[in-house]
Amino acid sequence: MNLPISDETLNKVLHEMDIDHISDATIKQCCGVAKALEDLSGTRFSHLEFGVPGLKACQIGVDAQKRALDDGVASIYPNITGIPELKANASEFIKAFINLDINPECIIPTVGSMQGSFNLIFQCSKLQKEKDTILYINPGFSPHMLHSHVLGINYESFDIYNYRSEKLREKLEEYLSKGNVAALLYSNPNNPTWVCLTEEELQIIGECATKYDVIVLEDLAYLGMDFRTDISKPFEAPFQATVANYTDNYVLMLSASKIFSYAGERISLVAFSNKLYKREYKQLKELYGIGRMGESFALTFLYVASSGTSHSAQHAISAMMKAAVNGEYDFVGETREYARRAHIIKGLFTKYGFNIVYDKDGDANIGDGFFFTIGYQGLDNEELLLRLLRCGISAISLKETGSRQAGVRVCVSVLSSDQDMQLLEQRIKMFVEL
Amino acid sequence: MNLPISDETLNKVLHEMDIDHISDATIKQCCGVAKALEDLSGTRFSHLEFGVPGLKACQIGVDAQKRALDDGVASIYPNITGIPELKANASEFIKAFINLDINPECIIPTVGSMQGSFNLIFQCSKLQKEKDTILYINPGFSPHMLHSHVLGINYESFDIYNYRSEKLREKLEEYLSKGNVAALLYSNPNNPTWVCLTEEELQIIGECATKYDVIVLEDLAYLGMDFRTDISKPFEAPFQATVANYTDNYVLMLSASKIFSYAGERISLVAFSNKLYKREYKQLKELYGIGRMGESFALTFLYVASSGTSHSAQHAISAMMKAAVNGEYDFVGETREYARRAHIIKGLFTKYGFNIVYDKDGDANIGDGFFFTIGYQGLDNEELLLRLLRCGISAISLKETGSRQAGVRVCVSVLSSDQDMQLLEQRIKMFVEL
Repeated sequence: MNLPISDETLNKVLHEMDIDHISDATIKQCCGVAKALEDLSGTRFSHLEFGVPGLKACQIGVDAQKRALDDGVASIYPNITGIPELKANASEFIKAFINLDINPECIIPTVGSMQGSFNLIFQCSKLQKEKDTILYINPGFSPHMLHSHVLGINYESFDIYNYRSEKLREKLEEYLSKGNVAALLYSNPNNPTWVCLTEEELQIIGECATKYDVIVLEDLAYLGMDFRTDISKPFEAPFQATVANYTDNYVLMLSASKIFSYAGERISLVAFSNKLYKREYKQLKELYGIGRMGESFALTFLYVASSGTSHSAQHAISAMMKAAVNGEYDFVGETREYARRAHIIKGLFTKYGFNIVYDKDGDANIGDGFFFTIGYQGLDNEELLLRLLRCGISAISLKETGSRQAGVRVCVSVLSSDQDMQLLEQRIKMFVEL
Repeated sequence: MNLPISDETLNKVLHEMDIDHISDATIKQCCGVAKALEDLSGTRFSHLEFGVPGLKACQIGVDAQKRALDDGVASIYPNITGIPELKANASEFIKAFINLDINPECIIPTVGSMQGSFNLIFQCSKLQKEKDTILYINPGFSPHMLHSHVLGINYESFDIYNYRSEKLREKLEEYLSKGNVAALLYSNPNNPTWVCLTEEELQIIGECATKYDVIVLEDLAYLGMDFRTDISKPFEAPFQATVANYTDNYVLMLSASKIFSYAGERISLVAFSNKLYKREYKQLKELYGIGRMGESFALTFLYVASSGTSHSAQHAISAMMKAAVNGEYDFVGETREYARRAHIIKGLFTKYGFNIVYDKDGDANIGDGFFFTIGYQGLDNEELLLRLLRCGISAISLKETGSRQAGVRVCVSVLSSDQDMQLLEQRIKMFVEL
């Protein structure tokens, strides 16, 4: 094993890739650096930077998608608002695991939640003249902020680290009382920190959203993966925590990428509350001729974006949701594998003196899941990342995610075998000794 | 047969659907009116309004897509710039049928050409500060103009009807000499008129694009379907006509929707000229950190739009293109069925006194293909459409497509049987007698 990599080699690679500060690099650039260092050192890295599914795709989806192709859907434009059976099954799925009543018509497929969030942000910025700003509760998934940046939409953000519990209300009031916020966005469980908002915090967000007429865009990409609460039994409590219990001003994003390990087919759902779906916005009508929130989203925004979502993939997610509702597919049990990996990897880092940066939800320790965050004895992002890289560990800086804390994000999805874990431990040891 | 429908019934339906003028209605609204009238009259309409494939999906694509799903691609994020085999096969396909040398790296999959044109227009508006306007050569596919409208980008357009041949140069100079046009867009063969630009006209467009540093966005959705020229033999002349023979400032859009009857899976390609792909734009770099045209398109615009295109559908289009290149799948022969239908349907309309509105390319009669345009004895769009509807024929107004001529667009794709044709003739006869 040709590790640690020398400072000279590392600096040379960064220079060649035109990266001044690794802590400012995008995920794609971090992957590029790791790849270059792997080639130079002839050593496979411990990849903690990818946020990709580490499990096989749900076979029920694969079978349904193949069946749909055999049935001839490839030649037929998909309905932009979604095929009827998907809408019905998704409505049942939401009832079974989130305990919400959302009408089938209010649920619309998108080309991944990336298309969902892009177009929701876009649409929300066009609803009311004075509301032109998106508020991000950070840390977050960096493309969410990129949506606003590329679209030229104003946005603001804050790091939730110092604003948990009642302090969150003060912070939200500070932004929302200005009256210019159209929508606020967060992911729960959170990418990159695995913070899961408490019921108290969700209630605060919901109440503020109602009070200031702000739409909450809640990304549930990791639905059911706060394994401290087992939501795996359909139609039985406990259910997925959500802001939807505290306001009608919400839109949920449900991606198949992680829940069903179906990232390759770019299939997700957007679910509007029944009330918001039907709400008329005068400005939407004036601008695009269609004033109702839900119809405008599909027939104006999704129409010009891609004219709908893969017909066969709609059948896939429909079948997977149906199987989950019927208790034939335990998606929570399948993804629990990530908790097992997180438990081991967290243990390794803390054993050698690393700390968990975002460590609590209320009084409870943060759960084991897809991501967690680590810091080391006050090292800043830059130093921490560079040292990890020299020891064959690649990760991404918290800075890129809108966090103001020092640390890196660890994704556990691609490390699975005992050998992967042993190798990681050796490298962490090397890091400490460096 | 409960036709003709009375004026009262028709007006009642239009009123209920909040449509003041049927000639201003969108395709979706026209479909809605036809549906309502079908329900009321208990009579199936002759649908000439849908622009959907009327053929089965290419089986080679279906088989490849199913194989890819079996191979596990559903769990793996697709490379945003496209899977390597697709890029290589597409490059060969473009050589075989368009006789252009485009490097594989310059070819990128999109979620239908809708995603391609949306993001190309968006990107082109951000290249150079002073170039903030999109020019449409109309008539055209109405969502293309909607892209600019929704994105808030300036656009201009003209109806090509009076500007064929050398007159096209004068008209283009008039717009482009102002210096504010970033890109110009058209489809060839043209939706809705089936106008096919002559070599002379393509040369004019190419020369003007080079002279004024304007990017040509050429939509080749109906590649090979100008059946007056048989391009079906791979690597043998004649080839698909294209502006690419006259400028380097081009991007081609190649959709699988009609060429391979694969509309359901939302899969298309965008192909940049080798030169344009590599071109650096200072403003792109400043705004988004990536300055090269091709990389910016994929890593900035497509990334935030949907994070790539269905992994399995990429395998489908790859296999279909490979089969076409190898002479195993004659996509031109398959789609020639549309010419057969157009020949019959055009014959029926002209037999009863209708005229073809856009009737010539240079000295040649327009070809038989997916669409054509008809007028009747000076009736305006409104009267023509209403009378056709009363007789059980649904179509769309030319007005919606940016045409200033009176007439409607006829799409031949869903009428195929002798019975369909007989029914249509009875209804045309009824129209004339009304």
